[in-house]
Formats: sequence, structure tokens, C-alpha cells
Amino acid sequence: MNILISSAGRRVKVVQYFKENLNEVNGKVIAVDCDIKAPALYFADEKDIIPRVDNEYYLEKLLNICKKYKVDAILSLIDPELEILAANKKVFDELNIKLILSSLEMLAIGYDKQATYEYLFEKGIPCVPTFNKVEIVERKIEQRLLEFPFIVKPQRGSASIGIEIANDLEELKKLFAKEDNLIIQPFYKDKEFGVDVYVDLIDGHLVDFFIKEKISMRSGETDKSIAIHNREISSLIRDFVVETNFRGQIDIDCFEYEGQYYISEINPRFGGGYPHAYEAGVNFMKYIIENLNDRVNKKYTSYNYEAGNIMMKYDNVKLI
Amino acid sequence: MNILISSAGRRVKVVQYFKENLNEVNGKVIAVDCDIKAPALYFADEKDIIPRVDNEYYLEKLLNICKKYKVDAILSLIDPELEILAANKKVFDELNIKLILSSLEMLAIGYDKQATYEYLFEKGIPCVPTFNKVEIVERKIEQRLLEFPFIVKPQRGSASIGIEIANDLEELKKLFAKEDNLIIQPFYKDKEFGVDVYVDLIDGHLVDFFIKEKISMRSGETDKSIAIHNREISSLIRDFVVETNFRGQIDIDCFEYEGQYYISEINPRFGGGYPHAYEAGVNFMKYIIENLNDRVNKKYTSYNYEAGNIMMKYDNVKLI
Repeated sequence: MNILISSAGRRVKVVQYFKENLNEVNGKVIAVDCDIKAPALYFADEKDIIPRVDNEYYLEKLLNICKKYKVDAILSLIDPELEILAANKKVFDELNIKLILSSLEMLAIGYDKQATYEYLFEKGIPCVPTFNKVEIVERKIEQRLLEFPFIVKPQRGSASIGIEIANDLEELKKLFAKEDNLIIQPFYKDKEFGVDVYVDLIDGHLVDFFIKEKISMRSGETDKSIAIHNREISSLIRDFVVETNFRGQIDIDCFEYEGQYYISEINPRFGGGYPHAYEAGVNFMKYIIENLNDRVNKKYTSYNYEAGNIMMKYDNVKLI
Repeated sequence: MNILISSAGRRVKVVQYFKENLNEVNGKVIAVDCDIKAPALYFADEKDIIPRVDNEYYLEKLLNICKKYKVDAILSLIDPELEILAANKKVFDELNIKLILSSLEMLAIGYDKQATYEYLFEKGIPCVPTFNKVEIVERKIEQRLLEFPFIVKPQRGSASIGIEIANDLEELKKLFAKEDNLIIQPFYKDKEFGVDVYVDLIDGHLVDFFIKEKISMRSGETDKSIAIHNREISSLIRDFVVETNFRGQIDIDCFEYEGQYYISEINPRFGGGYPHAYEAGVNFMKYIIENLNDRVNKKYTSYNYEAGNIMMKYDNVKLI
């Protein structure tokens, strides 16, 4: 079995984990990226270069690589590529290549924070309130339903890029007017958690998850985290998987605020903090291989990791 | 021989390189940091915790650790600690512990960008012009000696923290008035280079150096770089070592601007990009061990590395 990881970038550990697990079953990992200087390329069994996802030859080149290396399944590590792959599901189906990702509909919801909120709200899943009009926020403040500070951030895109904090109405209006497609959220962050979730690709049940509290960030990614067990978050994740239709590996950000837990973001792909889960024994690669062999994974029963271990990231180097 | 690395932080590679070289001669590396979650601690032969450098018990605790692990020599990886160690040279001398760093006088010059400029200017070493008064810059602009854009940055501290660009006089005045202790430099950056230099600790001659062009940055550190040979930079470095009194491992930042080369910063310690030099064969640890054995290193004759190889950094993880 050969799995292609697209836009592998700096995600060396994810490539290594796939290689470990695939090599055991005589499979290979093929890493591709648009940059020959993407370190993860150099840790795969095979590597190749693709054009950027917005290039007109992107899909053609990717399909040629899939044929060349007899690829059985494909996943991507960056948000903008997920929807492109899902939108071309038919093309991949015809070549008998499985997509290790959620449906186009679910990906679109995850990519758009306003849509995430509206979707989860409707399903009754606690989520950080999200608004794309200042007037609505103003009314909620008057009604004493919400209070300052608020966060202003892009409606699409990853967690900590372009986030600003507004402490009063004047500041909120100014920040919100700066750009198009911004959203407003109350600053609901006493503690921040990342949850790595695996949903069975075949029948959509919860297979496993790993909860970590984020201790420190660097370049917008979790730099240090601690593994925790938490009944409320576990229950939130179980409800989330039952009520939604995401599939495969998902990275969910949660905030604790005044003792309540809220989902703040859904990234329907391996998150930057996944190595913590894997090193603690939560092996999504095995679940993926099982699913690709047309076997359903066992349903989740209880934590498959110890609480309390701390993950620290550090720099390694590779010369080419 | 036992070497203590203070404020080891995230610098796992530096600790590993020392361990490799010291273990060969039955020596040990002892890593200390004020944070138990500093990843580099976990790659040393021995680890211990010290208070922060501004804590009143810092020196006492550090000296106790030196005695406990029979430390022969000590170095630090962070700027604020270098001067504290050098200022206490007598205390370390009495315990027969060598400091692997420059003199207090030289450290003070390296830490202060205004002092760096004035010192190098006096020695005739090309350096990015640096000013701590807007009026001087205004006069130079009127005299057509300098032109916009300019950079405004803190007089002390590391490279890319708090840097802002001014495109006109109004902006320059506003940025400069924002804080105390800022300096102004012309934006001299067509290309940026990092040079790792080793100056013999015993007699101050140039032992070796490694030149890399910086390709991309991340979190204020070099993320990707390419090894180069460059006659002008080589000549600049040779002159620099002859004219100044720095010692041991030094990280020098250089800019190319309109075909000329200028020193922009001197960090009298291992720079964040040093792993590129080591992996390319430029082993400062061997030179340090040689010096600590009271042997002078061979004088520099020519490049000890191939040009063209590219270093890429990537994240690794460690669980504790």
C-alpha cells in the first residue's frame, strides 16, 4: 500500500510516522511539495515536486505522480489543498485512489469560521460565538450577553495568523474595518486545548482521540503541550463526532472559559501538534491503513494514553 | 573534560554536537536552564536547573552545579548571560573553570548596536551605519549621504525582534519616538549572510569560519540557508578578527548592499544557524576542546567546507 502526502512541507514527523507504519506492511510513503527545499520530502520513501495548488497544471502533475508511484491513497497537510482534492474526488475514484479526508461539504465548513459556528450551533455543540457584523456584537453587548475583550480574525485561514484584540467598541470597529472577511469572537480563552481526533473513514464512528493542553506557542504552532484526560472535553468530542460528518484525522481547537468548554476551530487534517499524540501512543496511521484495507476500526471506548506527559518541540536540521 | 552549557533552551543540536565530541575524549556535557521544559536539557549527559539570570541566587546555584559535576569550562547560548559570566571571571578563575567567551569589554560592544558601529567604524571595518539621533540621519539625508528606507530597531537585543521600516521622515520620527533606546540604520539588505567564526581562545587568531546566505527566516532565526564561498566576506572576516579582540565562537550577520558587504551585527556566541556549519564539517567543538587542553589551534588557511549545500530546519519532538 502506497500513501501520498501532499504539501508535506516541514511536517517531517508525520512523514516518518507513515513511513514506519507503511514499511511494516511493505508499503511506501510518497511525499510531494511545490518547494524542493521542503524538509519532509527527504524523509519519505519517494519524493516529487508538484506545482502550487493554484497552478493550472497542479492536478495533472499530481495525477501523473500518483500513477508513477502506484499511489493507493492521498492526503494533504495544508488547508487550501483539502477542498481541491475533495472537489476532484471523481477523478481520484476512477484511478482507484482513496482520499483520506472529509467530504467537500465538511471541509468548506471547517475552513470558514463563521460557517463552523453556525453549523455547530445548529447541532447544539458548544462553539465560540462568531459574528461577521459589528452591529450584532454591539446589540449582544447592550443586552449584556457578551462583553469585551473581543478577537478580530480572518474568517478563513489558520489559527493564530492575523489575530487582534479589541478592548472597546471604537477599537473593535477600527480593527473590523481594516480588511474584508473578518469575524469577531469573544475572547474565550482561559485555557487552550488541541484535540487530535480520528473518525473511521468507512462508517464514521469515533475511533480515538488525544487531548493536550497547549502550554506555549511558536510561529503559530503548539511548541509545548501536556497530555490530559478531561471528561467535559471527551464528552464534547463524542457529541461532535455523532452530530457531524467529518472523517479521518481531525485537529480540533478548544477553549476553556469560566469552566465551560467551547470548540474554537476545526482543522480537518493532521494538526501541527499531532506528534504529541503519536509519541504518546495514539497511532492514527494504523487506523488509516486499517481503513484503506477496507476494515472498520474498533469503536472508541476509553483513553489510549497516559495523562501528564509533556511534549517539547525543538529544531533539527537536514542538509541537501 | 566536562563542559557546562548554560541557558541551553531549544538548542538541542549544539548540546548534541558537544556530547559527540566530548564523549570521544571521556568528557561530558552538562546542560542547564531555568526552565525544566527546555528540550536541550534532555540531550546532555547531565542536566540541572538554575534560577533566571536576574535572580539573586543565580550565580550561587550555577557555581554549585559547576562543583557538583566537576565542570572544567562554561559557555552560554543567550546574550544577557554572557556579560554576567564575564563579569564574574575571577570567581570562575578561582575554581579553575574556563569561560568559553569573549572579554566583558568585547561582549558589551557586541550587545550594543550603536557601540558595534562606532567600534568597527574606528577600526575601518565596513559596518551598517547606525545612529541614535534622528537629527543626524536628517542631516545625512540632506547631504545625500543616505536615503530612505531606514530601519528602526532596539539598540540592544537580537536581530529581528522589534524591527520596523520607515519610508519617510514623518514615519521615521514617529517610529523612533515610540520607545527609548532605539537606533536607526539604512535598509542595507539586498542579501543577508550569517558567518560562524571561531577565534582561538588562547592567542586570538582566526581558526575557521563558515559563510551561509540566509534563504528564509522563521521566529527570528535562519530556517533555510545555503553554504557559500565569497572572497569579499572572507576578507571582511579576516580583517575583523585581526582588528578586534573577540574570542571563541562568534556569529556575525552581514548584509550585501549594492555590491558592498557590511557587518550588521556581532553575536559573541553560537548563532541559531550554527548547525549548518557543523553538518557541513566545520566543527567548533573540536577547536574548543583543543583550546581547553591548552593547545593552540592551527591558523586558518582556506575554506574547510564545500559551497552549495542547503540546510533546512524542521521540528522534532521529545516527550518527558
